[in-house]
Amino acid sequence: MPRAVVTGGAGFLGSHLSETLLARGWDVVAIDNLSTGSLGNVAHLRDDPRFTLLEHDIVQGIPLDGPLAGRVDAVLHFASPASPPAYLARGIETLEVGAIGTQHALELTRANEGARFLLASTSEVYGDPLVDPQTESYWGNVNPIGPRSVYDEAKRYAEAITMAYHRTHGLDTHIVRIFNTYGPRLAPGDGRVVSNFLTQAIRGEPLSVYGDGLQTRSFCYVDDEVRGLLALLDAPYHEPVNIGNPDEFTVLELAELVHEVTGTTTPIVHEAIPVDDPRQRRPDITLARELLGWAPTVDLVDGLERSYSAYLAAARG
Amino acid sequence: MPRAVVTGGAGFLGSHLSETLLARGWDVVAIDNLSTGSLGNVAHLRDDPRFTLLEHDIVQGIPLDGPLAGRVDAVLHFASPASPPAYLARGIETLEVGAIGTQHALELTRANEGARFLLASTSEVYGDPLVDPQTESYWGNVNPIGPRSVYDEAKRYAEAITMAYHRTHGLDTHIVRIFNTYGPRLAPGDGRVVSNFLTQAIRGEPLSVYGDGLQTRSFCYVDDEVRGLLALLDAPYHEPVNIGNPDEFTVLELAELVHEVTGTTTPIVHEAIPVDDPRQRRPDITLARELLGWAPTVDLVDGLERSYSAYLAAARG
Repeated sequence: MPRAVVTGGAGFLGSHLSETLLARGWDVVAIDNLSTGSLGNVAHLRDDPRFTLLEHDIVQGIPLDGPLAGRVDAVLHFASPASPPAYLARGIETLEVGAIGTQHALELTRANEGARFLLASTSEVYGDPLVDPQTESYWGNVNPIGPRSVYDEAKRYAEAITMAYHRTHGLDTHIVRIFNTYGPRLAPGDGRVVSNFLTQAIRGEPLSVYGDGLQTRSFCYVDDEVRGLLALLDAPYHEPVNIGNPDEFTVLELAELVHEVTGTTTPIVHEAIPVDDPRQRRPDITLARELLGWAPTVDLVDGLERSYSAYLAAARG
Repeated sequence: MPRAVVTGGAGFLGSHLSETLLARGWDVVAIDNLSTGSLGNVAHLRDDPRFTLLEHDIVQGIPLDGPLAGRVDAVLHFASPASPPAYLARGIETLEVGAIGTQHALELTRANEGARFLLASTSEVYGDPLVDPQTESYWGNVNPIGPRSVYDEAKRYAEAITMAYHRTHGLDTHIVRIFNTYGPRLAPGDGRVVSNFLTQAIRGEPLSVYGDGLQTRSFCYVDDEVRGLLALLDAPYHEPVNIGNPDEFTVLELAELVHEVTGTTTPIVHEAIPVDDPRQRRPDITLARELLGWAPTVDLVDGLERSYSAYLAAARG
């Protein structure tokens, strides 16, 4: 049975990834310090004997004994605060997990000859992009000293050190640049727009739109995202690959769809736009299509409906 | 007597900085792992009882006992491989000192209440810039996964974590973006163009020009650079400040000046241009002029003459 280590395995993406790996016959060790992840995200996996949750901060190192004794076939490095409010409140911690945590995950891979490594990078490496859509060859437009740099620069550093381990040690590394992803278990009120809106709709609160709401986003349903990044893990390709949904919506359009899907009509309130909030972010997924034969299949209304059902069920307890 | 810690204190810039601090009445503890620094750079300081060299790798932590027991008033963080051949040969080490080394230097500052911190950042954070000259507000054009990213992204991360310590802990931090600096003790053959040319001229070898030689550089004499960055250490300002010489020369023009100053006429040979070699790099120093009243005073011919004399003396032993 192949065995995977998922750092951040009790987070939104990490928990979906663990679930999919288990369904595909992997053993999974999830490592999480529960800083932004939660036990609730993996509650449904804890009875599976092939799933282990190790509550641990990978910045302190990754022990090669205990649950990690024995062969590891793949290391999927997803540990990091990922929503702006979460990383802005944990600036130094976010920098540390991007640099030191990534290096520890690379060293774990290196300790297992032939193991594969996947870095969860992000569209944030493109910053506030000057080209649209963004291809992987775009170098980005990131403010190195702005408040968001604790995340953006940490992820750019993580890409750089991943490539350095590939070049220096011949490690079988992969880098996925993840665009806006949503779905069940995206923490309510974590500050990302889909979870904000769904939570507000359920509570009967107004939908908060930052700025004029004309900034655009592309939203990828989590099942599509996980399928894409697992395809990348199998590919003989080491440079970054965008995995995201290129369908573009303004934040106001999303608000309307949330009204439609939830059958609510709470008003929209405009709030101050955060510093360095990108105007636009949309993946060019030509590379993923050609390299992996991957494309998203869940449209936004369908994905919002699935998410809304899950949020309702969770709200009911 | 105020006391400064200079990481990378046995390097080119670090040794000049230590020398100037001693001359201004500071005690100096230089920390260097001698990876690219050398004992020769500080040989002339070792008899000064106010100078201590601690041979140590700051990535492993900075001990608060031994030479560092007692009050530290300023931490000047200059440790890093800095020339392309040096950092390309030490990719992971360069990333580590940029991230982990910087954090250890910040923690040393934090352990000394009221102490000041200066990060040696670099014009490399601008990458291959799309604007000319570069002001501090330019976000840069850096390839996060290219070979040079081990240096560029490490320095961008270093800026981000420096700002995070300022914002989170109120640390009195300063960031200097150093442009091409040259002068005595710039390691011969370290791959930077002024030291390359002077060394080649002295040896009677052809001057090696990468590509067509029409890429431009601005060269700052080391005394000007050190004077500028020490002025910044005193300023109530926490965002990055360019310190460099805005006079622009093509690499071919520099080669001619080297011929002139050295009285040699060795031919020019063109070699392959390195990956992601910037076409142009030139500081806008308006901020340094206004904030610090600083401007460079040594012109290129003068600086080349001083450097040439020092190189000749060193070559004679």
